[in-house]
Amino acid sequence: MPEALRPRHIFLEIAYDGTDFHGWQIQPNALTVQEKLQQVVSELYGGRYIHIYGSSRTDTGVHAMGFAAHATVPESPYIPFENLFKALNRRLPDTIKIRRLEVVPDDFHARFGARGKAYTYVLNLGEKTPFLARYSWHLPQCSRLDEVRAALEMLTGTHDFSSFAAEAGRYDDPVRTIYRIEAQHFGSLLCLTFVGNGFLYKMIRSLMGAITAVGMGRLEPDDIARIMAARQRTAHVETCPPQGLFLMKVFYDDAAMHSFHLDRPPMMY
Amino acid sequence: MPEALRPRHIFLEIAYDGTDFHGWQIQPNALTVQEKLQQVVSELYGGRYIHIYGSSRTDTGVHAMGFAAHATVPESPYIPFENLFKALNRRLPDTIKIRRLEVVPDDFHARFGARGKAYTYVLNLGEKTPFLARYSWHLPQCSRLDEVRAALEMLTGTHDFSSFAAEAGRYDDPVRTIYRIEAQHFGSLLCLTFVGNGFLYKMIRSLMGAITAVGMGRLEPDDIARIMAARQRTAHVETCPPQGLFLMKVFYDDAAMHSFHLDRPPMMY
Repeated sequence: MPEALRPRHIFLEIAYDGTDFHGWQIQPNALTVQEKLQQVVSELYGGRYIHIYGSSRTDTGVHAMGFAAHATVPESPYIPFENLFKALNRRLPDTIKIRRLEVVPDDFHARFGARGKAYTYVLNLGEKTPFLARYSWHLPQCSRLDEVRAALEMLTGTHDFSSFAAEAGRYDDPVRTIYRIEAQHFGSLLCLTFVGNGFLYKMIRSLMGAITAVGMGRLEPDDIARIMAARQRTAHVETCPPQGLFLMKVFYDDAAMHSFHLDRPPMMY
Repeated sequence: MPEALRPRHIFLEIAYDGTDFHGWQIQPNALTVQEKLQQVVSELYGGRYIHIYGSSRTDTGVHAMGFAAHATVPESPYIPFENLFKALNRRLPDTIKIRRLEVVPDDFHARFGARGKAYTYVLNLGEKTPFLARYSWHLPQCSRLDEVRAALEMLTGTHDFSSFAAEAGRYDDPVRTIYRIEAQHFGSLLCLTFVGNGFLYKMIRSLMGAITAVGMGRLEPDDIARIMAARQRTAHVETCPPQGLFLMKVFYDDAAMHSFHLDRPPMMY
């Protein structure tokens, strides 16, 4: 095939406001980010179906600044490849934005190639306002910040996280490594950033359930170790609401992962 | 009347996300903040109609952190007065929040008593993202920041602002005083805060049209003085979109007005 006619294997970095979507993955009778994106791509390629492979699922209401995906797009009379990035963003709603689009080697896989991810959970410890309500969990009673810090230390490292997941039984191996959990204050917001090699289903929101229970005095930091050792979900660990959670970045190289750092709250990126 | 049975004259400070509302003032066939608020107040007082007087109108899509209003509420078996603040916020949607509720003297009037107002307009000079799209105008091409500063100086002071208003002819006196316009950078956001004794209809969004025209090189700072002197609307001045505009505060005393200062972007309050 001449170079110009070869299909191109592409990487996409995607931001979306999860408020109005039932997460990433296509499902019947509910609008998802994947469905909306595939619809727009298909329109650009004259109705042809092009599958977009996501790096993971995200739950209903969870936001993303750096969701990752890959796809293979054909050479097409409908859309010159160099126009694809702008054309996608022009047709997508304001709630979805393609941040990067790059040609990658044919064997690149958004899910299997990922070395790790960074998630940030935003707690609003101050006044509840309309603008923060969509992008944080309002929890002024989470005031024991020294104890929160102690809990974060206990959760960092390589552990069986079955106690902090939903449907942990479906994993062959529920051991994951959290390289670090960074706590940052921006005004009244407390942002907790989790960087790890992978996360079980609903793991961040469950960890946040345990961490905020410590912050509110319902659990002590030492309880965290006990709950983790039980390797079983307990009623003491609730799942925090989705609107505080942002998938910030999916990493394909270790250096980028270990240097990742927020310099403002996630919704200000 | 015994003290407890006297009606109470109250001041309300209200925040709202303008995205889903057709502004403050009640109108047929469109949801407004005033309508929603009056509906909730009426529910709390057993169906009784209680008028809420706003400090001004705001346009469709414009946000508020500190809209001001007053009302007179009766003593009622339905709702003890001391519960009113919490009961209102419990019943209002997440898009409207009562920030303050205080008993004020009987002659307090939210509109006629106002000494001035502060508005902030948010320009996003960086990347367009889903989270900023609701609360800013994306205008990376507004890059001539020295010229913008020169334009701000020309607009400050006491002027006939007819050239920067819609329907200026309906004002007996189109002269207003802008005490200061503060330009602040927060990351990629440029926030322009206007503090003045009053503003004509669509005046801030029209001023922003002129200011951004200077920022993009379509006008020079000197053109601003010429346009102002003409006392007539010109096609060179467009009206900026509403989602970048926040009514930050209505002032009832001069000291508070002159010391007003943002320490973070409006949507982070």
